[in-house]
Amino acid sequence: MNISALQKERANYQPKLPKSLKGAVKLVEGDKTESVADPKEIEKLFPNTYGMPLITFEQGDNGAQSAPVNVGVILSGGQAPGGHNVISGIFDGIKKIHSESKLYGFLGGPGGLVDHKYMELTAEIIDEYRNTGGFDIIGSGRTKLEEEAQFDKGLEIANDLNLNALVIIGGDDSNTNACVLAEYYAQKNTGVQVIGCPKTIDGDLKNEMIETSFGFDTATKVYSELIGNIQRDANSAKKYWHFIKLMGRSASHIGLECSLKTQPNITLISEEVAAKQQTLSEIVEYMAGAVSQRADNGENFGVALIPEGLIEFIPEMKILIAELNDLLAEGTESEKEFKMLRKSHRLEWVASHLTEDSAKVFKSLPSGIATQLTLDRDPHGNVQVSLIETEKLLGEMVKEKLGQLKKEGKFSGKFSTQYHFFGYEGRCAAPSNFDADYCYSLGYTASVLIAEGKTGYMASVRNLTAPAEEWVAGGVPVTMMMNMEKRHGHMKPVIQKALVELEGAPYKYFVSKRGEWALGTHYIYPGPIQYFGPTEVCDQPTETLKLEKA
Amino acid sequence: MNISALQKERANYQPKLPKSLKGAVKLVEGDKTESVADPKEIEKLFPNTYGMPLITFEQGDNGAQSAPVNVGVILSGGQAPGGHNVISGIFDGIKKIHSESKLYGFLGGPGGLVDHKYMELTAEIIDEYRNTGGFDIIGSGRTKLEEEAQFDKGLEIANDLNLNALVIIGGDDSNTNACVLAEYYAQKNTGVQVIGCPKTIDGDLKNEMIETSFGFDTATKVYSELIGNIQRDANSAKKYWHFIKLMGRSASHIGLECSLKTQPNITLISEEVAAKQQTLSEIVEYMAGAVSQRADNGENFGVALIPEGLIEFIPEMKILIAELNDLLAEGTESEKEFKMLRKSHRLEWVASHLTEDSAKVFKSLPSGIATQLTLDRDPHGNVQVSLIETEKLLGEMVKEKLGQLKKEGKFSGKFSTQYHFFGYEGRCAAPSNFDADYCYSLGYTASVLIAEGKTGYMASVRNLTAPAEEWVAGGVPVTMMMNMEKRHGHMKPVIQKALVELEGAPYKYFVSKRGEWALGTHYIYPGPIQYFGPTEVCDQPTETLKLEKA
Repeated sequence: MNISALQKERANYQPKLPKSLKGAVKLVEGDKTESVADPKEIEKLFPNTYGMPLITFEQGDNGAQSAPVNVGVILSGGQAPGGHNVISGIFDGIKKIHSESKLYGFLGGPGGLVDHKYMELTAEIIDEYRNTGGFDIIGSGRTKLEEEAQFDKGLEIANDLNLNALVIIGGDDSNTNACVLAEYYAQKNTGVQVIGCPKTIDGDLKNEMIETSFGFDTATKVYSELIGNIQRDANSAKKYWHFIKLMGRSASHIGLECSLKTQPNITLISEEVAAKQQTLSEIVEYMAGAVSQRADNGENFGVALIPEGLIEFIPEMKILIAELNDLLAEGTESEKEFKMLRKSHRLEWVASHLTEDSAKVFKSLPSGIATQLTLDRDPHGNVQVSLIETEKLLGEMVKEKLGQLKKEGKFSGKFSTQYHFFGYEGRCAAPSNFDADYCYSLGYTASVLIAEGKTGYMASVRNLTAPAEEWVAGGVPVTMMMNMEKRHGHMKPVIQKALVELEGAPYKYFVSKRGEWALGTHYIYPGPIQYFGPTEVCDQPTETLKLEKA
Repeated sequence: MNISALQKERANYQPKLPKSLKGAVKLVEGDKTESVADPKEIEKLFPNTYGMPLITFEQGDNGAQSAPVNVGVILSGGQAPGGHNVISGIFDGIKKIHSESKLYGFLGGPGGLVDHKYMELTAEIIDEYRNTGGFDIIGSGRTKLEEEAQFDKGLEIANDLNLNALVIIGGDDSNTNACVLAEYYAQKNTGVQVIGCPKTIDGDLKNEMIETSFGFDTATKVYSELIGNIQRDANSAKKYWHFIKLMGRSASHIGLECSLKTQPNITLISEEVAAKQQTLSEIVEYMAGAVSQRADNGENFGVALIPEGLIEFIPEMKILIAELNDLLAEGTESEKEFKMLRKSHRLEWVASHLTEDSAKVFKSLPSGIATQLTLDRDPHGNVQVSLIETEKLLGEMVKEKLGQLKKEGKFSGKFSTQYHFFGYEGRCAAPSNFDADYCYSLGYTASVLIAEGKTGYMASVRNLTAPAEEWVAGGVPVTMMMNMEKRHGHMKPVIQKALVELEGAPYKYFVSKRGEWALGTHYIYPGPIQYFGPTEVCDQPTETLKLEKA
């Protein structure tokens, strides 16, 4: 394999572990736990895995040699930096337990478990992937483990391979499913344990016990490097507004963290839009206001961060999208009628078939975006929100608004835009020291939970703003994070998604500063992730964590 | 100023200088020079600055204290990493000559000289910008210094400030103009010298004496970091083809360098397209062929690099664009007729007014792109090539081609695309160690050329694949790089633009490997620029330079 100079050097990096995991480990059980909401329903659904105690690891006296443990590992969903380190942490952990322990990787995500596609992960393979980005060691996939038939197929291979446990590395949904699987295997007395690991660059899998999901640190550092570079360009050329869309559908943690790191002029936070029931035109007015005020100071440039999922948080857009989904649902009479129309008549026809309010919103959209809403549909006939170029939508609407202001004599500047979308650039970056250490520790923690016979737990490493030595490792019952939510029309037990808290310290700090950042030019240029330099540069956790823990 | 941890640390970096510049400097003159072409015409146009000798600096015996020198510096054109280091190199250089030397920065590009907008660059200001990206210390601009009236305005301020010299940091055009200015000031015996510095991320200002333009190293490293991350994502998710457009209008050096660094499946080189007179459909066939062959191996993913300026190198597109520029030129009868038409009839009308060949090409384009060609026009009514989304054009045409192949039973894979455009992400990155050292050395070299009374020279630092200690500093007469070219209908003396040489080692190496890279998955993941680590990671020049010098 032809590898880069950096990758060669990074292969030698030894991720840091909390001191409790370095030698013999003592397991300390806390109080029994309750789910964050709906405890009765959750307990009923998880009779074997509900209410288990929190677990903390401490330094033990001596390490009694245990029997070998065999583990299967699964990468589920979108890539996040550090996945390979979770796996190498598990590997080193179970090898420490017993040199004959074995690790298997199921290929291409949860589907590999069901289809019995796997490979043994040997020391040689693991060594090739230490401290690297990506999920390419075994691949990932989006198959959802929800059916008993899948669980049974999984059990077959688990028995064939003589597995003690499965580790599922995934986001909130994958960990919910991991818990359902744990419960099913426990109920059937299969002896197969299931442990989860909190992964997602989106940062929306977190709570009191899971301080952050892995990958969030690295991904936001990559995006912030790019945002900083673009800010420096904006401030040098002084002629463009850069509208930058950032990946992350359901929460604005990425946008908020990047904003704290780089201090751009505008950052939209979806959760605020929803809470304040802001309309599209209010958002556009806010943005145009900032552009116009900067222009008054002679600064016809700026940078705006826009969360990918914004559009679904704008109440009127949510309603419009729902109406469009009904109107143009595949196979309906209305969809047939729509398709028969000449292209030039379609938008008008659509508007005339919406409610009055939605028609008004629809007509206010630039025609390119309106067309996108009627054309780009997923296989179920739904609007594909991820394909909507929200950054361009807002850019065009701000331009129009500024045109009005110009006519009214209220704007005399210039407004030229450049658009960017950052997502794939960060999901597979080589993990920062923080993520390399955190992921390795999570994997190692999972191996100890397995050796201790635990199931239905998520590996947890806390106290993350302290040096890695002092991190606190242990396990959290997945049921503790659950509540009941409506999904596809049915109430289901799911891990509560963590949105940006409008009462939280990171958001409050942002709000206290954003006025200053909008008008002044207070850009910070974080630069690229550094691996070898001074600790102030190389080993810092996210601003979000620092503010939450301050 | 709120600065990042990395910026704080980098402020302390002392850029490396060639050993010839570290103490007293001895100037060694080489033979008289000739222009690369059209020597008679060039000599006639530059009687005072033509034919001057090459200059090399060597270590001198002792440094006789000279008088103070006052210098004005100008940043011209697009940003490139390292501009601030050129300026700090000049500053340290002239301060070493005499502590009372002064450096002035003209604001917002060459326009600052004409409009007498400037600031003195003090030690305090310089220290804030050492080793940082961007041109924000004094701003840049695109005003062209071409008129004698501008030169005279410049002379006024030069005299007011008692300037010995101007240093113009720019690309090929700016350095051409610098030379015209040098000649004019020499001819008038003004005593104001003009020195150029070779800047551009595009890499197209280079020749035997200028091994590389500054900024190219850093920018291609940033793009390669992102390409590598995306490749790792592609290879993990295994479901997308990423089409990545890279900045750079007239040459494909960026694409070639990034390709050598990351080994993607497809890299298009504009110069090859032009040389082979490839048609759009031949390019699409080549790309679809690679997609289809990879699909046969079960790999429905890949990465393709596309140079921004490609479209202008495709002979048939060049002709089409020229015809469109005529047909839709502002104020013409045909343009009026076009504008009166309903949108839905415009494309057909345009096609019917083109030559047969161009009409065929025009009709083969996806309608979104065809529309873009008729609508997005610059103030002169010309097609804005930089706005054409070439990556989407190719993606859509490859998809169509694959659809045909599928019908013929020749393609049974999947083809989903993601599009990216990288440019602004790299132009203002903090300079790599290489660019930090190179730029600082260029600036320092300029100060020595000034102290030696030289004008019409470009600062030159060569032998760049050796350690910085052994770099060779000196000056190259700008006229030496010139030839006569037709610009806007007139023959003008200009610095020859360096395109990718199809006989050069970098391109030849690429060609020898690209078949393997297309079918296999030989991605390299360079990762982010490192400043503090081992020299193999932190101090490497570009692959292009290494191959050219091998």
